Formats: sequence, C-alpha cells, structure tokens
Amino acid sequence: MGKRNLYLNNTPVEEALNVYREALKGLIAPGRETIPVIESLNRITAEAVYAAYCSPLYNAAAMDGIAVISERTRGASEREPLTLYPDADFAVVDTGDPVKPPYDAVIMAEDLTELADGGVRITGAAAPWQHVRPIGEDIVAGEMILPGRHRIRPIDIGVLLAGGITEVPVYTLPEVAIFPTGTEIIEPGTEPGEGDIIESNSRMFEAMVTEHGGTARRFAPIADDYEKLKDAVSRAADEYDMVLVNAGSSAGTEDYTVHILRELGEVLIHGVAVKPGKPVILAIVKDKPVIGLPGYPVSAYINFENFVVPVLEMMNGRAGKQRSVAEAVVTKRLVSSLKHREYVRVKVGKVDERLVASPLARGAGAAMSLARADGFCVIEQNSEGVEAGERVPVELYRTLEEIDRTVVAIGSHDLILDVLSDLMPDECPGNYLSSTHVGSMAGLMALRRGEAHIAPAHLLDEASGTYNIPIIKRLFQEPMALIKGVDRIQGIMAAAGNPLGIQEIGDLRRVRYVNRQRGAGTRVLLDYRLKLAGIAPEEISGYEREAATHMAAAAAIAGGSADAGMGIESAARAMGLDFIPIGPEEYDFAIPVRFLSLPHVQCFLEVLKSEAFKERVMKLGGYALRRTGEIVYC
Amino acid sequence: MGKRNLYLNNTPVEEALNVYREALKGLIAPGRETIPVIESLNRITAEAVYAAYCSPLYNAAAMDGIAVISERTRGASEREPLTLYPDADFAVVDTGDPVKPPYDAVIMAEDLTELADGGVRITGAAAPWQHVRPIGEDIVAGEMILPGRHRIRPIDIGVLLAGGITEVPVYTLPEVAIFPTGTEIIEPGTEPGEGDIIESNSRMFEAMVTEHGGTARRFAPIADDYEKLKDAVSRAADEYDMVLVNAGSSAGTEDYTVHILRELGEVLIHGVAVKPGKPVILAIVKDKPVIGLPGYPVSAYINFENFVVPVLEMMNGRAGKQRSVAEAVVTKRLVSSLKHREYVRVKVGKVDERLVASPLARGAGAAMSLARADGFCVIEQNSEGVEAGERVPVELYRTLEEIDRTVVAIGSHDLILDVLSDLMPDECPGNYLSSTHVGSMAGLMALRRGEAHIAPAHLLDEASGTYNIPIIKRLFQEPMALIKGVDRIQGIMAAAGNPLGIQEIGDLRRVRYVNRQRGAGTRVLLDYRLKLAGIAPEEISGYEREAATHMAAAAAIAGGSADAGMGIESAARAMGLDFIPIGPEEYDFAIPVRFLSLPHVQCFLEVLKSEAFKERVMKLGGYALRRTGEIVYC
Repeated sequence: MGKRNLYLNNTPVEEALNVYREALKGLIAPGRETIPVIESLNRITAEAVYAAYCSPLYNAAAMDGIAVISERTRGASEREPLTLYPDADFAVVDTGDPVKPPYDAVIMAEDLTELADGGVRITGAAAPWQHVRPIGEDIVAGEMILPGRHRIRPIDIGVLLAGGITEVPVYTLPEVAIFPTGTEIIEPGTEPGEGDIIESNSRMFEAMVTEHGGTARRFAPIADDYEKLKDAVSRAADEYDMVLVNAGSSAGTEDYTVHILRELGEVLIHGVAVKPGKPVILAIVKDKPVIGLPGYPVSAYINFENFVVPVLEMMNGRAGKQRSVAEAVVTKRLVSSLKHREYVRVKVGKVDERLVASPLARGAGAAMSLARADGFCVIEQNSEGVEAGERVPVELYRTLEEIDRTVVAIGSHDLILDVLSDLMPDECPGNYLSSTHVGSMAGLMALRRGEAHIAPAHLLDEASGTYNIPIIKRLFQEPMALIKGVDRIQGIMAAAGNPLGIQEIGDLRRVRYVNRQRGAGTRVLLDYRLKLAGIAPEEISGYEREAATHMAAAAAIAGGSADAGMGIESAARAMGLDFIPIGPEEYDFAIPVRFLSLPHVQCFLEVLKSEAFKERVMKLGGYALRRTGEIVYC
Repeated sequence: MGKRNLYLNNTPVEEALNVYREALKGLIAPGRETIPVIESLNRITAEAVYAAYCSPLYNAAAMDGIAVISERTRGASEREPLTLYPDADFAVVDTGDPVKPPYDAVIMAEDLTELADGGVRITGAAAPWQHVRPIGEDIVAGEMILPGRHRIRPIDIGVLLAGGITEVPVYTLPEVAIFPTGTEIIEPGTEPGEGDIIESNSRMFEAMVTEHGGTARRFAPIADDYEKLKDAVSRAADEYDMVLVNAGSSAGTEDYTVHILRELGEVLIHGVAVKPGKPVILAIVKDKPVIGLPGYPVSAYINFENFVVPVLEMMNGRAGKQRSVAEAVVTKRLVSSLKHREYVRVKVGKVDERLVASPLARGAGAAMSLARADGFCVIEQNSEGVEAGERVPVELYRTLEEIDRTVVAIGSHDLILDVLSDLMPDECPGNYLSSTHVGSMAGLMALRRGEAHIAPAHLLDEASGTYNIPIIKRLFQEPMALIKGVDRIQGIMAAAGNPLGIQEIGDLRRVRYVNRQRGAGTRVLLDYRLKLAGIAPEEISGYEREAATHMAAAAAIAGGSADAGMGIESAARAMGLDFIPIGPEEYDFAIPVRFLSLPHVQCFLEVLKSEAFKERVMKLGGYALRRTGEIVYC
C-alpha cells in the first residue's frame, strides 16, 4: 500500500501555532510601502501619520454672513441697532471663507437686515472670534491623525487629505501562492466523471487570503507527481511570501507533501489536536512559511483560520481577528474526545430572549454545514463535551441584530423551506428564516424546549387519521397554533425508469431500501403503511439505513447504493428519479400562540401567503396550496 | 448679497427618506449580472442558487484504507481474524476515492495488518456503508446552496464550485458620479494659499461608495459656474445610476446646486432636521437620484449614511446596515434642540464592567472628532438632550472586544499620548489607548466618577509646590497610585522670531494672549505665575479666550489671531513657534490601585517603559524621562 504516514502528531492548536510563530519570528516581518491616500481604503498604516497642514488652514467663517470688527459693534442692541457699511465695517462671507484682519468676528446672515443703501442693520454686538473657526480647530499641523496598525476607513481618507497628507505608509499585502494537488481533482466547469472531485478549496483560500489582507495567486492543480510538486513549491518559496499546498496532508498513499517539504526545508508540525482538521503541515522552506492544508473543506477552512490567518497577520500588521462571541444554550448533547479541540458548526437563533445554538453536521466534508452555520462553538481539548441545555460561548458569523430578526424553524425538511428562506429578506428586508432538519418529532420536542419559533411537521395520527393537531395537543401545555403549510404527495422514489418495477409498499421487501431517521414523518408514514399491509420492518432490507432528508434519500437511490425509499415528489423530481405516489399528506408549522405576534413571524406568514411563494412552489411540483397560511388554534 | 437660500425645510430624517424612497420606487431597481463564482467575493446574490451536482459526486471512501464487501467480512473478530486478498476481497482506497460495486464499506488503514503475501488481516466485521460518504452527503443536486440577497463569502465560493456552479447571478454595483464643487477648493497635493480649502470629501465619498457596494467615479472639482455645473450634472444623470454633488447645498451666496437641480428635475427635500447636516438636497433628475451633500465633513458623512446608503441599497440589493448598538453611560450633559435629531460623536470605554461614552467635539467641521470616535449617540428630535450619567444607546464603530481591551484616559493633553496610543497595539497586539482631552482637573473628576482608567494630569499644589499627589489625596477616597510620566518644560509660545520681544510673564500684559480652559494644568500654572508676579487676570488681554489643547493654542498664535500663550515646548516646536521657557513640570497619570492589574493597563506600563517610547519622545523634544513608569502609591 505504499508509504503511508499513519502516524501524525497530535499537538494542541496553541502549542503548534506558538512553535510555528517562534520559528518564523526572525524570518518574516511586515513589508512597507507608500501609497496614495486615495487608494488606501482598508489598508493598514505602517506607522503613525501626522498632519502637514492645519484644518481649517486659516481663521474661517463658521456661518454665512458678514465678517466684522467686533469692537465696532459694541453697544448694538434691539433698541439701539447699529448700521454697518461694506468694506469700512464689514465684508460678506460664506461659510469657510477666511476672516482676515481687521475683521475678527462673524454675524450670521439671519441676524441682519439689509438696507437700501447697501448697509446692514445689526441688533446685537459681536463677541471677538464669534462664529469664527480658528485655524487648526479641527486638525493642527503636527498632530497625529492616525496611529500605526490602523485600518484606513473612508473618514480617515478624508482627514488625511484635509491634513495635507497625500501619501501614506502602509504594510504591503503579502503574496500567497496556492497549489491545489491531486490526480483526482478537476477544474470547476469540467464535466466530472466517476472518481473526480471538483477542485473548490483553492478558490475558497483565494477569497480568504483577500479578506485577510493578502494577495493570492492560485496555480493550476498539480497531479500527484512528486518531482513536479517539489519543483513548484521550491520555486514558489523563492517568489512568494507564503505557500499553501492543499490536500496531500492526510495520511493517504498519495501523500507526498510532507516528504517534499521535509526534503525542501523543515516540517515543524504535522498533525494538530483539532477536529475537523487534524492533518495540517506547518513547514518552513527557504525561510518562507509553507502550510499543507487537508483536502476536506471544513478541515481546510478551520486550519486556514487557525494557522494561515495568524501568519498573514505577522506579515501584514493586522490585529488578531475579533469575532464576536455570545453565550448560547446548546440544543443537544455534544460528546467530544479528549484527544482534540473540536469546532462544532451551529445554527443560532433567539427564542424568548435566549440565544439557542443547534449543532449542524459535524463531518469534515460537510462544507454546506459550514456555509449554513451562524457560528461555531468550540469544545476544548480538555473537555469531554457539553450537555444539552448547557450555556456555551459561540463565535458568531452573523450579527446579533440579524439573529434577532430570524425565525428559527426546527423539524421536518421540505424544499419549500429553502424557498421561504429565499423569499423572506425579499419581502421584508432584514428578516430571515433559519431552518434545521431533524425530522417532525424531534422538531416538536425542540419547540417544546423553547429552542425554535416554529416546527415544520407532517405527523399522521394513526388513530384519527388526521395530521399534526392530535400530536401537538398531546405534547404541549401552552396555547398552540398550526400554521397550515402545503399538501404534498408522499410516495416511493425509485431509479429513473423504475427498473425493478416497484408498484406498491409490498414491493419494498425485494429491493435495497433507504429509510429516514427515527421520528421523521416519512418514517412514521412508512411504519403506518407497513402495518396496514401486515409487513414487519425486519422484512425490509435497509430499514436500518437512515438518510437525514428527502434529498439525501433520493441521492442514495440516484447513486445506486439503494433501490428505493419513501419521499416527496419534489425531491424525486429534483434528482431525476421515478416516483410511485402513495398518498397526500399535510406539511404544516406548529407554533406557540405567543410567537404569532413577533414581527419576523408576521413576515413569515406574509411570505407564505404571497404570490411569489405560490409561483415558486408550483414550479417545484408535487404540492397543493389549499389552506396555506391559515392559522388553526389547537 | 445675491440670492441666498435662507429658508431650508426642516423635514425629519425618516420622513425625508420615505418621501425620497417612494419617489424613487418605480424609477430604480437593482440591476443583475452573471459573473464567475471565483470573482464573486462580497457580491450579493440576485436570486437563490441551486446545486448542479451532488457532493460527493459518488459514494466515496471517508477514510484511507480498503474498500470491502461487507458481507464477506461477517464474523471477523480479534479471536477469529479474517484474511482478505486484493481485488477478490478488497481494493485499496484513499479518502475521497470512489467505493464501487461490489464493494460497499471501508475498513480504516489503522485497523489492518498487512501480510507478506499481499493479503491483509482484519479483526472486525465491516457494517454496510461504514466509512463511506454517500453521494450527496454534503450537497445534493437541486438543493438550494445560497438564498437570494446573500453576501458571498469565501466558504460560499467553495460550496458553489463544489456544487457544480461556476457562474452566479448577482446584483450589479451601481455607478455613482461624484462632483466636488466650489471656487475655493483645491486638489490635495497643491500648496494651499489663504482662503483655499483642500478638497477631501469627494475621496471620502468614493471610499464610502466602494464600502457600500457601488462603483464611484469622482470628477475634478467644478468651480462655482452655474452653466458648467448644470451641464455636468445633466450629463452624469444620463450616464450614471446616481449623482452626488458636494457643497453648494447650504444657504450661501455661492449655492447654485438647488437652483440647478430644480431646473433639471425635481427637488423633493431641501433641508432635514438633523445636526450636523441640515442642508441636504434630495432630488431626481432624469429619473436618477441626485443628492446634494453639505461641505462640512461631518455633515457630509452623516447625510451620506442617512440618505446615500439607503438609495445605494435600493439599487444593489443589500440589506440595511446593522451597526452594533450598546448601552453606555454618557459622561456629560448633552443639550440638544427639539428642532433636530443630533448625532454626537463619542469615545467609548469599558470601566468597571460599564460602558462609558465621552462626547467629542460637536461641530460640523470637526472631521477629526469623527475619525477619533468609537461611535455616536443619537439624540432624537423629540428629546431636549440627556443628563450626565444617563444610559444611552450608542452605535459602535469598534467591536466590544476591542473596547474591552482599551485603556481609557481622560485628562490633560500631551503629544506623548499620541505616541503611547501608537505604540500600544505594536507592543501588545489587540490592546489600545483611547484619550479624551478635557484638562487635568476635569480628567481627575471623570476618574472619580468611574469614567476612565487613568487621568493624565500636571496640577501644581501651590501650598507645597509639588505636583499631582496632593490634589489626588484630596479628591479620592479609594487607594490611588500615580504612574510617573514625563518631566516637561512649560513656557510662553510666541510667533516665530518672537517679534514682540516677550521675555517673561509680565510681558503678557502688552500682547494678545490665548488662554487654556478652566481646570487645565497650564491655566493653573499661569494663574500661579501671575499671582507670584502680582498681576491680575484682568490685566491680560485674551485671558478669557480659551483653547482646548496646547496645539490649539499654538495654532492660534501661528495663525496670527493671538501673540502668545502658555504651552509645552513640543507643541511650540511642532508648530514652528518660538518658545520662552518658564520652568519644568511633572506630567503623570493618576490611577485607582484596583486598575493596575488590568492586562491592558499592564501593557500601557510596558509601553511607557519601552525603548521605543523613549526614542520617540526624545525626538519630540522638551521632555525628560527621569522616573517614567514608576508607580507611586498615594
């Protein structure tokens, strides 16, 4: 099986970073350059900047009016107005005009009466220097305008220019070379064959380098060719400030990177105690930082934040990022090993003035869970995890203001949730829908624990044959309502063309089935149908195999690892599968009555009843909108 | 005096914005374009984006190891290991490799023993689909990857590409024409003469347009020429999505803009109830928004945020900005008129777990106060102001994390404070010094009220002839310390060459003096010296004229409106003035003992004792560092 690097180190994150920083300390330092102020937005000052001129540059009128000699206005009052004449007594000035000797004060235009003979009448004396902005009132020559290590904002550009500064010393943007590697990877836009992986990490890195104050140069993917990669990295270490090599840092047979880096320079760290993201490589080649990042997107992302960003900051003078942190109640137990620190992506919502964090998929490959996350909670290496209901600090990707106006949905998945979340900010800007898919029953339980505003559900009550209302009545004490959602068709999804000729529930006994998780409405429906047909779960091969959503079940069938699964028509359509209808069901939203008046819930209702929603749902197919948006009190 | 627009309207901000938005509603809409995903960072999606492919694209190994047929591994255990042979029983796979029929599970490399004959020994059975990432586990084809109106982040670029998307529909960046106007303005980099104003607002606007998702085109300044400006605006309205005209929106004689806009189109609003910033013009020319912004930088900035940003957002699909808001205790009474909403810039610090907001200069021209601000508090139109000690909501420019690690200094001004604030983040990244200049006595009072960590002071006790300690003992009940600062030379600042031949305190009777504010250490020193010399304050012409800092006093002398003022040598040097030494004084930092252990205060002490600080201070001149950084318990 070739030479595998089975044995990675397990260095704690902070220790690994310290080792690397220490090693780099003498080698890298922020570069400086002087650039025009008008091009300096978001750059970081390399040193303090001092004003060259005063602003205002001279004693200036602070109002539109006339410049006067204050002494000559003495004694003027409503009773004994004074008349002044141009040139001898006053000069007309606009705001910003110089006030020059002999004038030493300004009287506002509003306080004047113009006379026919060109004079003006004043009804009050002017104090010396009244309505005059003294030279340097705003900026004094020699005064520090900006400190060093300051990120230049639009207002800073304004004051720099006003202070007579046209060029500003800033730290240079480090140049980072990015090498995607691997024989199996293909460029985006290429039609993928089996075994191909679309190369996307390098483009994510490119954007992250840009965001963190660097310039990225992404190279074309390099196949797993030892000499080619070695040559490329070696040359890049000459020409760039930092080199990133993606993939090839795990312990696979095609893992050349660590050997190459050992040959070219020094590998300081290979493997850190972090999940996801263990197999990172921190190396130095020709005095330049070279970092090997794992191929899994979440691992790659977390290591980029943990290691690439701090090294970039050593080179560009930026201060450590300060992501905002808030305490949130975690909605389920998170067990974590003492072997590593774990980063768990979470959705965050605000329910009843309490921040609630719902964990998302924890896999290293789950890039979508990172894209969908509102933040993450960190389970430190010395912790075995957190219990459900515990308060944990969550680093937030979104602002608390956005989270405040987000409807939190936890429950059954349907494609219409995507449509709703897409339409929300359109219909009422600044309002959002966040949904986590755990199945109908788990959603209702989360709603009961105060972790969501609404729970999408489609739970059939076997006794009465009705949907949702009986179970809500059983589960909740407080006044509840049901927002009617959509009628949708459940059925059996099968490969395109239905090669196994599946016609009814009974046929599931002779195929490889893919089931849904316990508590999912679709699973409840299957169980009910099996019971009606007198079939035991044991008779269904694959009954124990669980997919988390309709789409995941559909994907298993499309991928050939299963022959059939229950699901909704829109999911079958989206994946190009055949669909054998079983019957209609009601997909609704359970909600405590007290949430109905929340403005973001009102917005949700509006969207649900909108023409735009109707149009989009009809395009998906497999739905009827008989009572959509209706509120039924339970 | 020509035609003045004395009478501006006084429309409340929200009403003005609503009127303008309504008028624009049918005229402007976000434009769309389709761009490559790899160039889409920070752009806003114009509609939801759905995955074209699944990710993974096929059932893939989740571990490095071997792909096996799960059925054939049944029964394997530690006691009864099983030997498998290549091809017949297994295939070697790396993470990410396809797992194809007949294989349906993966055994990790760590769990294998390689045998000499090419076989491997396993000591446990493989469950079907173990360590296999099913097709679509991360992204399912047809699934929504991003909703509409979503700002594209690096991770989004990753998932879009992984989902087979290479181009993305986004809102276009509106193109904004910016016209600086005025005969008196000059381009930055030109040597200014008297009456000249360096044009800086347009460059600030340019950067603000960029920040808020537009493309700016800044034109060369247009002199006050009616036809020229009219022609330029008319043409720009044809070619651009929005036009900004700077200055010319007040009621001055040179104010053409409002007349031009009335001729070219419709002026909806002229004048809003906001301070600073009243004279804004909201107009529509050829169906395009044209906004006239006042010339004062703070007025211009506030109106840009209030009116230009919302219009930009109508055109680029962005959600309203969400600046973070925190409650802070305001340190002094703020009286505001019922005639307008007022934006007061504040420095914000955290002292004793309490956020404290110290108001900065309130003038419309005080651009530096905006650059130095940590945020602003808004005094609504229906409020007459807030009392000192009242809690007010403050919109923050900085993060709470940064504010947490900021040493708050309120008190006497010295140039070394700039040096310290410049060095702080250098010596201990992420730590800051924020200073507000109110004079020694006012600083100690603020310290006593818990509004600062340290108070820089140089207060001579007349009775004992010693500095700072006696007054601290008198003012504070709690244990206090003095961090020794610098010895510096006070003296009389006079115009270069000392044309009036000032030699000593007595000479101040025959010149125009500029004094410092009540409670300033320098004023206390003057009073002391006058008393020693037997001179009454009334004998000093200009005794009542107050400058807020050494530099402001120096600027008044350099500008010719005063002949002399007391100040420190470094300020006189910085402004090129003559300096007549009077005597040394001690400039120290009062601090409650309980703050000495704060990490950011520790950092402050380190910087104070650093070589870098010494070097910078020596360059300023006029200082001695005898006991700098020493702590004296009072």
